[in-house]
Amino acid sequence: MSQPKIVIVGGGFGGLAAARALRKVPAKIILIDRTNHHVFQPLLYQVATSVLSPGQIGSPIRGILRNQKNTTVILGEVTGVDKEQKCVFVSDADRENVSITYDYLILATGVSHSYFGHDEFEEFAPGLKSLAGAVEIRNKLLQAFELAEAEEDPSRHRDLLTFVLVGAGPTGVEMAGAIAVLVRSTLKSEFRRIDPASARIVLVDMAPRVLPPFFPDLSKAANHRLERLGVEVRLGHSVDHIDADGIIVAGERIVSKTVIWTAGVAPSPAGKWLKVETDRAGRVRIQKDLTVPEHPEICVIGDTASLEQNGKPLPGVAQVAMQQGRYAAKLIRSRIVGAPPPGQFSYFDKGSMAVVGKGFAVLQSRKVHLSGFVAWLAWAAVHLQYLGQSSLRVSVFLQWIWTYLTGQRGSRLIVIPRVSESNRTAVETRSTVVSGK
Amino acid sequence: MSQPKIVIVGGGFGGLAAARALRKVPAKIILIDRTNHHVFQPLLYQVATSVLSPGQIGSPIRGILRNQKNTTVILGEVTGVDKEQKCVFVSDADRENVSITYDYLILATGVSHSYFGHDEFEEFAPGLKSLAGAVEIRNKLLQAFELAEAEEDPSRHRDLLTFVLVGAGPTGVEMAGAIAVLVRSTLKSEFRRIDPASARIVLVDMAPRVLPPFFPDLSKAANHRLERLGVEVRLGHSVDHIDADGIIVAGERIVSKTVIWTAGVAPSPAGKWLKVETDRAGRVRIQKDLTVPEHPEICVIGDTASLEQNGKPLPGVAQVAMQQGRYAAKLIRSRIVGAPPPGQFSYFDKGSMAVVGKGFAVLQSRKVHLSGFVAWLAWAAVHLQYLGQSSLRVSVFLQWIWTYLTGQRGSRLIVIPRVSESNRTAVETRSTVVSGK
Repeated sequence: MSQPKIVIVGGGFGGLAAARALRKVPAKIILIDRTNHHVFQPLLYQVATSVLSPGQIGSPIRGILRNQKNTTVILGEVTGVDKEQKCVFVSDADRENVSITYDYLILATGVSHSYFGHDEFEEFAPGLKSLAGAVEIRNKLLQAFELAEAEEDPSRHRDLLTFVLVGAGPTGVEMAGAIAVLVRSTLKSEFRRIDPASARIVLVDMAPRVLPPFFPDLSKAANHRLERLGVEVRLGHSVDHIDADGIIVAGERIVSKTVIWTAGVAPSPAGKWLKVETDRAGRVRIQKDLTVPEHPEICVIGDTASLEQNGKPLPGVAQVAMQQGRYAAKLIRSRIVGAPPPGQFSYFDKGSMAVVGKGFAVLQSRKVHLSGFVAWLAWAAVHLQYLGQSSLRVSVFLQWIWTYLTGQRGSRLIVIPRVSESNRTAVETRSTVVSGK
Repeated sequence: MSQPKIVIVGGGFGGLAAARALRKVPAKIILIDRTNHHVFQPLLYQVATSVLSPGQIGSPIRGILRNQKNTTVILGEVTGVDKEQKCVFVSDADRENVSITYDYLILATGVSHSYFGHDEFEEFAPGLKSLAGAVEIRNKLLQAFELAEAEEDPSRHRDLLTFVLVGAGPTGVEMAGAIAVLVRSTLKSEFRRIDPASARIVLVDMAPRVLPPFFPDLSKAANHRLERLGVEVRLGHSVDHIDADGIIVAGERIVSKTVIWTAGVAPSPAGKWLKVETDRAGRVRIQKDLTVPEHPEICVIGDTASLEQNGKPLPGVAQVAMQQGRYAAKLIRSRIVGAPPPGQFSYFDKGSMAVVGKGFAVLQSRKVHLSGFVAWLAWAAVHLQYLGQSSLRVSVFLQWIWTYLTGQRGSRLIVIPRVSESNRTAVETRSTVVSGK
């Protein structure tokens, strides 16, 4: 009898954790992702704000799984699933909709941005979900200062140096803090016509407080810190409109060339592929063992899935995805080797953290609420620990020390590669179809 | 009386050396470049072959000159010079052909690629002159392996894994060596369908030997080393044609999706701007004090200039550009402060080096011909020394040690940023007009 085939879609935290946990299972594992690299998403904002290089938080998936002989990595875009025929459809650089059969399927396809029905905002307010997006935002951010420096009319400087972040969740707060440090420290004395420190940074959210998933005292500490960094925090305000000239918030126009979207997340189309029940946000409703009802061979994990624990939906964080990936691997392994299945999935919350500017973070776990420098040290230690590949860890560590001491950043480049026709098509496909991670 | 104005066009080795040497001169200095960063060109091939990140060899020009209060940096594209009115024309993100007047002008606009009258080759055989170009080549190179792995028909694998380098000068030789190590070491055991080590690497040149500027014994050593690394070296062969399917060399078609151009260099249009005499290659003929005849206020330096010393033209290397930049600064300073002018420019040749694969380089100076590991150590030491910004130096050093020991590279990413309309236009402009560096 030939070995069973396990297909994993997505090389993010969930898919990769599943693949690694399956390394000793007698099966043929196929991991499909539409990029060649795994991204350490929690540090994406540091690439967008030019602290780190893309190479410091992205590692080739093939490299990570090189010694796992039972696993094949495919660079391709999943376009659908046929759960009756048990196959996924994949388009790669060469061919469209090639079918790949499976005995077990793990969907870990992550999220993309939701503009809440206003997809036309995307052109003016890019989101931060991939390395390509982070590089795009970095170019945009750095070009704003160049545009302002080139502008002879000082009355236009303020508009050109207005940065608006939509969404006061962890990504929005971390971006706002990083931009504040960029303008006040890194870019200091580099311009002759403008003063980067005069830049206006606005953080907008409909929610009544920043960092809604955190405890109120930590939201308050983060808010206070943001204000000390000079960030204008506008809460309870909805975004009416975004265009080339800026944003309209609660009826008021803020002129800005640099609006960044960190607000809504839209799940991947996995629910549509499977034609199964989803929650209001479009995430696949799964059972306590992470499988889809009536399809014990299909697990859905991470941000793609909707699961409640103690009456509350699990948050869309890396820890949930990783723990679910490992659980899904254990479940499938038990079926293959005929072992008793694991008990139902239970998320162990190790806590959450968010950085605000330089040397300040908020941290909460079941027992601790902490804000300030010690929380920031804990944040740095935990992120370095999870950064995986040891060369990345060393290089990020050194970069942080350097940046902390000198204010200088590692990758403050405006690089716009020429996009060849074939690549351009690939990119356009990517922005309309959501899969991979 | 107001201070004299010195305009420097180009932030490469020449322009930057001039700007730095002018830091204490009582003048207003304006440095114009079309990118926001200085690139350490000798290591560009390491970005193209994914050893280093763009951020490790590129530093923001503003950052380098931040504390030089007499200097303003402008991100813009010079489109022409009016030497009678003493002004340059600059287009930036906002406006076109803004005129900037000067009292002294230093043109250090570097080179771009020459396809010897076959500009249609560029689409299929990108060249290596900028970080954007290096990232484009990196994407292309890494995608070739992905395409081959996705291809079910093994008879097509060889064509997809054929890499052709046109030009056996230092860049071509270094690229060929780096690709050979990539396929045999870095990518080992990462693919399941293809064996990267089976890749075919072809180095083509019309010249009778590799590394023509080096002594024949070193060319021979480099050639021998390339062959040991599995590189097919084809000398005395001219390129007839390049298209989407590959290249025709001396009548024979080599099927390849990955052709890289490192052959000809075309000088910037500085000669046309100035309407002065140029050499056959289009470089501005300058006098022994680096000025243009009849225009003692205009210096042309680096690859843009043509100057003979001891009956031989000076080579297009960083050392010449840097020494000329410093000389031009000294000359202009002497005029401004009324000091005696320096004696005529004399190039001091510190020697040349080229790396071939891993732990092997060739090195020549007036007294020494050396090839092998010791030459490679010298190469590494010299390049680290010149890498300038100290954080870059540390991070490149650690990356090299890591890569040397493990074979792993630092930035093996395929990242294709979405190019917004405004950026796309900027890029298209850039590929038709040559200036900056």
